Amino acid sequence: MTSGSNPTREAVLGGPAVILVEPQLGENIGAAARAMLNCGLTDLRLVRPRDGWPNERAVAASSGATAVLDGTRLFDRVEDAIADLEYVVATTSRERGQIKRILTPRAAAVEMRERWSRSAATGVMFGPERTGLLNDDIALADAAVSVPLNPAFCSLNLAQAVLLIGYEWFQTGSEAPDRALHLGHTRQASKAELHNLFEHLEAELDDCGFFSTPDKRPSMVRNIRNLFQRAEMTEQEVRTFHGIIAGLTARRKPPSTGR
Amino acid sequence: MTSGSNPTREAVLGGPAVILVEPQLGENIGAAARAMLNCGLTDLRLVRPRDGWPNERAVAASSGATAVLDGTRLFDRVEDAIADLEYVVATTSRERGQIKRILTPRAAAVEMRERWSRSAATGVMFGPERTGLLNDDIALADAAVSVPLNPAFCSLNLAQAVLLIGYEWFQTGSEAPDRALHLGHTRQASKAELHNLFEHLEAELDDCGFFSTPDKRPSMVRNIRNLFQRAEMTEQEVRTFHGIIAGLTARRKPPSTGR
Repeated sequence: MTSGSNPTREAVLGGPAVILVEPQLGENIGAAARAMLNCGLTDLRLVRPRDGWPNERAVAASSGATAVLDGTRLFDRVEDAIADLEYVVATTSRERGQIKRILTPRAAAVEMRERWSRSAATGVMFGPERTGLLNDDIALADAAVSVPLNPAFCSLNLAQAVLLIGYEWFQTGSEAPDRALHLGHTRQASKAELHNLFEHLEAELDDCGFFSTPDKRPSMVRNIRNLFQRAEMTEQEVRTFHGIIAGLTARRKPPSTGR
Repeated sequence: MTSGSNPTREAVLGGPAVILVEPQLGENIGAAARAMLNCGLTDLRLVRPRDGWPNERAVAASSGATAVLDGTRLFDRVEDAIADLEYVVATTSRERGQIKRILTPRAAAVEMRERWSRSAATGVMFGPERTGLLNDDIALADAAVSVPLNPAFCSLNLAQAVLLIGYEWFQTGSEAPDRALHLGHTRQASKAELHNLFEHLEAELDDCGFFSTPDKRPSMVRNIRNLFQRAEMTEQEVRTFHGIIAGLTARRKPPSTGR
């Protein structure tokens, strides 16, 4: 199937559509567009925005997310705004008494990413700022999404809600490692380089009488070696530390052999 | 050790401290306080806020997060703001050429939660809105945190950055299931109730001649049963569906026996 023959292909490319139902403030639409683009989302759909469209305040608040605002589509009915989508989730901040699957943003992102990977178009609906989605709108969705937050203070503004959903969406596709050691132009020290440093240090410590209790030398050496192991030193840092040891011991050497 | 004798205990209770270094706009401080309280964080520390402290605009933007603003502490130096903490991460939006561990917000939250669970105080530093943290401030931290976002459009405002870090912190402590089926006052149907519904439906379908090809009856029955299985029906919905079948077949019954 070519992309032209698949009516949902356009929606799929930019990730899930974001459907704002009756958004009130242009600022919030613009901030939502910014949050979307932060997360690589570009398909914004508005259902009956209170102040009409286009909206100057939305542009001002978007911080340059024009790629999203320029492609924003307007709809009169929620049904039309989601007609081309196969899987839609509805954000809710409170329990609505409907028999409905409730997902965390993380689980919703996983559901949408799975569908995206097989070119199925998905979307996330957000309600008006003060009231949230109507129950009838929620009933149009496959599942509800609720953000686990401090129950005593859980109100998010519209753009922040969009950001959290978009953030989780982006993470499901991100290849960034959870933990990385930035090494710049150097490299991690080899064990041989590290052992050489240990021996240099320990020889100097022997020389200056640091190990006053011979019994304790083995465990003290282990502790010192573990400290340096934890630091995950680079080869540059190993060389720097050889210099530090040389510099510190120079003051201790007999003046006749030093400068 | 009692809580009184542990100088870091206060910091531990409210989760990681949020340290805003030279924040410029009061609005951003207030919005950050709101995002903190959304995520159950209460320990806000300001280093040289540009417009002084307290700040009316911060109060207005906090949407009532006074619990955070009232306890906010002021510091002249970053070193003093983090003095009581054992583990500190520094948020950065770009690579700084330092040999440094770089964590995602999720990994940073795991690191902080692990320390929190053994009463070790932690914190997250955020730099000024336009420039971010100084390299010297980053060097005071145990690790850097960078949010994986659309590299072509990755600038977040201060409160959004605080929200994403706080959100991940809250998730590490949240017991909310990733997926749940909200059942209201009803309960999931038992398999016996579901089988009873299947038999009711299939008997009526036999009766009306729906299964025109006997060969295909077994696979059609399986498809229909799978559809209802996927819906995870409640016992109320099973009863409703018995009523739907009865209602639909009533129109088909001979008029003499109907009304």
